[in-house]
Amino acid sequence: MLRVGVIGTGMIGQDHIRRMTRVLSGVQVVAVTDANADVAAEVGARVGATVHTSGESVIADPAVDAVVVCSWGQSHEQYVLESIAAGKPVFCEKPLATTQQACLRIVEAEVAYGSRLVQVGFMRRYDAAYRALKKVADSGDIGSPLMMHCAHRNPSVPGYYEKESAIVDTAVHEIDMVRWMFGQEIAAARVLIPRKSRNGGDLQDPLLLVLEMADGVLVDVEISVNIRYGYDIRGEIIGENGTAALGESGTVTVRRNAQLATPVPADWRERFILAYDTEFQEWIDSIAGGGHSVGPSAWDGYAAAVVCDAGVEALHSGTRIEVALAEQPKLYQSVE
Amino acid sequence: MLRVGVIGTGMIGQDHIRRMTRVLSGVQVVAVTDANADVAAEVGARVGATVHTSGESVIADPAVDAVVVCSWGQSHEQYVLESIAAGKPVFCEKPLATTQQACLRIVEAEVAYGSRLVQVGFMRRYDAAYRALKKVADSGDIGSPLMMHCAHRNPSVPGYYEKESAIVDTAVHEIDMVRWMFGQEIAAARVLIPRKSRNGGDLQDPLLLVLEMADGVLVDVEISVNIRYGYDIRGEIIGENGTAALGESGTVTVRRNAQLATPVPADWRERFILAYDTEFQEWIDSIAGGGHSVGPSAWDGYAAAVVCDAGVEALHSGTRIEVALAEQPKLYQSVE
Amino acid sequence: MLRVGVIGTGMIGQDHIRRMTRVLSGVQVVAVTDANADVAAEVGARVGATVHTSGESVIADPAVDAVVVCSWGQSHEQYVLESIAAGKPVFCEKPLATTQQACLRIVEAEVAYGSRLVQVGFMRRYDAAYRALKKVADSGDIGSPLMMHCAHRNPSVPGYYEKESAIVDTAVHEIDMVRWMFGQEIAAARVLIPRKSRNGGDLQDPLLLVLEMADGVLVDVEISVNIRYGYDIRGEIIGENGTAALGESGTVTVRRNAQLATPVPADWRERFILAYDTEFQEWIDSIAGGGHSVGPSAWDGYAAAVVCDAGVEALHSGTRIEVALAEQPKLYQSVE
Amino acid sequence: MLRVGVIGTGMIGQDHIRRMTRVLSGVQVVAVTDANADVAAEVGARVGATVHTSGESVIADPAVDAVVVCSWGQSHEQYVLESIAAGKPVFCEKPLATTQQACLRIVEAEVAYGSRLVQVGFMRRYDAAYRALKKVADSGDIGSPLMMHCAHRNPSVPGYYEKESAIVDTAVHEIDMVRWMFGQEIAAARVLIPRKSRNGGDLQDPLLLVLEMADGVLVDVEISVNIRYGYDIRGEIIGENGTAALGESGTVTVRRNAQLATPVPADWRERFILAYDTEFQEWIDSIAGGGHSVGPSAWDGYAAAVVCDAGVEALHSGTRIEVALAEQPKLYQSVE
Repeated sequence: MLRVGVIGTGMIGQDHIRRMTRVLSGVQVVAVTDANADVAAEVGARVGATVHTSGESVIADPAVDAVVVCSWGQSHEQYVLESIAAGKPVFCEKPLATTQQACLRIVEAEVAYGSRLVQVGFMRRYDAAYRALKKVADSGDIGSPLMMHCAHRNPSVPGYYEKESAIVDTAVHEIDMVRWMFGQEIAAARVLIPRKSRNGGDLQDPLLLVLEMADGVLVDVEISVNIRYGYDIRGEIIGENGTAALGESGTVTVRRNAQLATPVPADWRERFILAYDTEFQEWIDSIAGGGHSVGPSAWDGYAAAVVCDAGVEALHSGTRIEVALAEQPKLYQSVE
Repeated sequence: MLRVGVIGTGMIGQDHIRRMTRVLSGVQVVAVTDANADVAAEVGARVGATVHTSGESVIADPAVDAVVVCSWGQSHEQYVLESIAAGKPVFCEKPLATTQQACLRIVEAEVAYGSRLVQVGFMRRYDAAYRALKKVADSGDIGSPLMMHCAHRNPSVPGYYEKESAIVDTAVHEIDMVRWMFGQEIAAARVLIPRKSRNGGDLQDPLLLVLEMADGVLVDVEISVNIRYGYDIRGEIIGENGTAALGESGTVTVRRNAQLATPVPADWRERFILAYDTEFQEWIDSIAGGGHSVGPSAWDGYAAAVVCDAGVEALHSGTRIEVALAEQPKLYQSVE
Repeated sequence: MLRVGVIGTGMIGQDHIRRMTRVLSGVQVVAVTDANADVAAEVGARVGATVHTSGESVIADPAVDAVVVCSWGQSHEQYVLESIAAGKPVFCEKPLATTQQACLRIVEAEVAYGSRLVQVGFMRRYDAAYRALKKVADSGDIGSPLMMHCAHRNPSVPGYYEKESAIVDTAVHEIDMVRWMFGQEIAAARVLIPRKSRNGGDLQDPLLLVLEMADGVLVDVEISVNIRYGYDIRGEIIGENGTAALGESGTVTVRRNAQLATPVPADWRERFILAYDTEFQEWIDSIAGGGHSVGPSAWDGYAAAVVCDAGVEALHSGTRIEVALAEQPKLYQSVE
Repeated sequence: MLRVGVIGTGMIGQDHIRRMTRVLSGVQVVAVTDANADVAAEVGARVGATVHTSGESVIADPAVDAVVVCSWGQSHEQYVLESIAAGKPVFCEKPLATTQQACLRIVEAEVAYGSRLVQVGFMRRYDAAYRALKKVADSGDIGSPLMMHCAHRNPSVPGYYEKESAIVDTAVHEIDMVRWMFGQEIAAARVLIPRKSRNGGDLQDPLLLVLEMADGVLVDVEISVNIRYGYDIRGEIIGENGTAALGESGTVTVRRNAQLATPVPADWRERFILAYDTEFQEWIDSIAGGGHSVGPSAWDGYAAAVVCDAGVEALHSGTRIEVALAEQPKLYQSVE
């Protein structure tokens, strides 16, 4: 039974705690903390976990085998570094850290430690549809991949969503996904600006993000975050001899009112709930008994941060921006 | 933590044990037994459960909170009755018992006990697609249901599959499903015989089973168990104003070799694995802390047995056979 | 240029005249008549055709190469027999005649004449989707056909639609279609009665018509004529190794209001307009220059009438009714 | 009956002649010519048309009401200008002329003539799926259009296909289609270069052409001309509140070999044959009785030529190229 301490018991932290206590196998939540002590106390009492007054104290707790970081993004670097210092596996919700420099410090700390302790919460890699898509791409059935068309659509976004959020909060999922899908780094980014939707107020929405993979595969990502009709994630890989695409996810088909229709999910929770479950179960299984993380690594968190920076610069400048990564440490080279 | 004893560690028993130890939350397998003592010993050692020499001993074990029966069908009645006698919740794989008389004895024992202890393994009720279909049917969006078209297709069946298996092993899932879908009993059955497939040797395959619900909804079930192309479960409800159908379950779409194609599952495990997980998690959650089962009841097991008998008689006689059920005890009336 | 005389210039007659004068190639409408002389005069003036006072006079007109019969069903036998007597090709809208005896008289007259002059308006055989379906069935790709599931759905029917209309006006299209699809006769019919839709008033709607082909292929036809949502024709052939079905006909897919939807046609005109065009063009091409009809024959009209009679008897009796056909004359044996 | 003279009886010319003599209504082919006199003679004899020794002679023939130009692209300007000079309606296969300057000369000649005589063979506007798509876009149901994703895929291309062909022969159809779809001009073009397919030899294939409409709608067009699996044309309009896309065109669905599949057309003839029929019938109907063309105009031919030039420059330069059109004459302003 893996004993986990959770830093941050806000919406996402509570959802992961529910997952670990009510859905998944082989895991126990033994310690919690939050900037809001009342919330931490309430959650701790509910699941029978020790309530700590700081993240450091959670990490240091000898009853804690592994750490889950769901706190405010600004604090991620600190807690991940502390976890590495304590030699404890740590699952960190995205972003790994708020700057590429901070991400690189985490990479360096982990390399110094000598084995993989850090996993970043890029859950698309655990989605059954993306996995089936990658399986087809890897099979060679459609020939070598040449392009990929993606769309990331939200019905609406909250008021604090900013121009750059389209890259760093929304498209960051596609940025990680294509690195994993094609097993290579992103070499350059550019952003094309379509006509603006009136649903987004002052926000420049939608956008077309164009990514170039190291071997030339060209990826276009439509980012539409006020499209009203639902939450919709699409992806099609264009190979030399055919294409492979995410299927439609509707479980039921209704013929009514002159239409044949399937429902579209309302939000990302509905679309990706099983991916979150799989992500956590595989993390638990990989580190239970002393194994190391095999999911998205600190390097993946760092690379995503660098591409996001390039994407934001491309958005502001209107030009093509090359992505400049540090040299990849050996620690990450054998890991998919 | 619910402590479960498993009677029968064959293929299905082991799969449920894997589920309870590696996938689900809040459950522990603490005791096992099997007609084959070596298998029981191996499985017990693997998961750290006490190995018993009989089902009775598992049921009597004070460390066992609840019982899962996955043994040979002939033994189900005995173990379920013993579990009731011991006042312990029992999950029994289908069939509840091998005759409708035995099922009725279980119903009577449970009624005498006074609350619901028994759940039968009809897992279709836990499938996300069927649940979405029921939600549409119940919403009134397509008007009152009038008909339902179903198909149950297997690529092939093993050598011991007999003429009657098409009803009692295959269509039994649709028999339970429509009772649950429409919230009422089946009133009559008949079987129509199409041209015979050469894939099935001497077996009469396919069949068209026609069921009449108490309120007149007419259900037709195509049973094709040697259709080679894959495992495929289909269902469409015809309402007064529209229809609702199970969607296609493909997660990926491939354009290749002059075709646009989605994969069809190879077998029922692939199609219904999540339904099994949901079924068990909901069972665990419902009885943990002393609650009673809310899933498919002993009455459901009995009713399915009576309809299967009618279906087999209809298959042999070529005529319409009415279904004669005992009066439903109050215990089952308020449970969906 | 084939010169055609049209008997009956009601809605369907006018539509065929529009088709022959505005859409198709190699045909001219040179003569018209109608029970309503004013309508005939108006239509004749519009397209420059001679207006006759009787069908006999149209048939006898030396300027008329071929006859199209769109008059009241009761008059079909008379005009078809006159056309045969005149040795002129005749296209007769369904039904060929209003009784099976009358149909048989036409068959006998045509056999006496010695070559095929009569074509009946079963236009499904000309629909691209049905043709693609037949091509797959004939290819052997799905193995030998064993069953077929059909649905014939109308949003609503007019007030004069009667109980028997479901067979003789609606399902008659499927009756002809399966004879053509499987290249053999129908051996028996029965009708199962589902719960009644409140949309149809006193009408027993829907119905499930079950047909047995001579070689045992079992066909079920859902007939729903008040289903509101649209006009929908579906068909799936179950073979030994796979199935083949009519595709969805939607040309556009809309994501809107939490749904992914395609439009359903409003009526049969929209669904089958191209089939009507193809039907007439192929008829024109086959008889231009003295060739004989190769489309649905007088025998097909007769066989459909006999099966309809059996279907109506099955509807009234609730039992399985065998279909008894006269011996098929040689004239029809080599024609598909 | 419209009497047409055809200049050029190669593959496309013969197909249009077949269409006018065997499929469509209200038209006669009365005159033909071709650079290859033997072919012209053979075709002329077959359809009963006068064989001319020059295009000029066809145009001058008093028996010719309207001209169809299917000759070598280099000769289009000459024959279209002659037709205008003769005051005869002329249908010119694409391209209208081989340079934008030549196209502009035709525009100027037509403006001088004073009414529309010229129609260019952009047949996508007549495709039922594109028309349904435009209807949804125009309805406002998905809000104002903001983006459009297109794909134009061919299984292979002949040896003489060159780098620029991807723009001027392939994407030219999308270039015309989006001008028609959105009712406005294209303001700029750029071309992004993905990883190269080995199926295309030295050819740079695929490409991503990005077009900016005058009001900012951003269009991306994947051009893949060696993708082997089939001929596939896709398009999805992204509106403020939803999207609308071309449906899949498969008329039959086959379940076989572990797949649910629909066929993909082998080539453009199969995909667009009905669009060609509609295009010609509407052209015939519009000019019969002295009306003028209402289809794609000389201005549309000119605008497509200018955008193609910009696209080719963008392909060579790797930069964004603005499209500079002459001022649009009034003659074209009221025409859709």
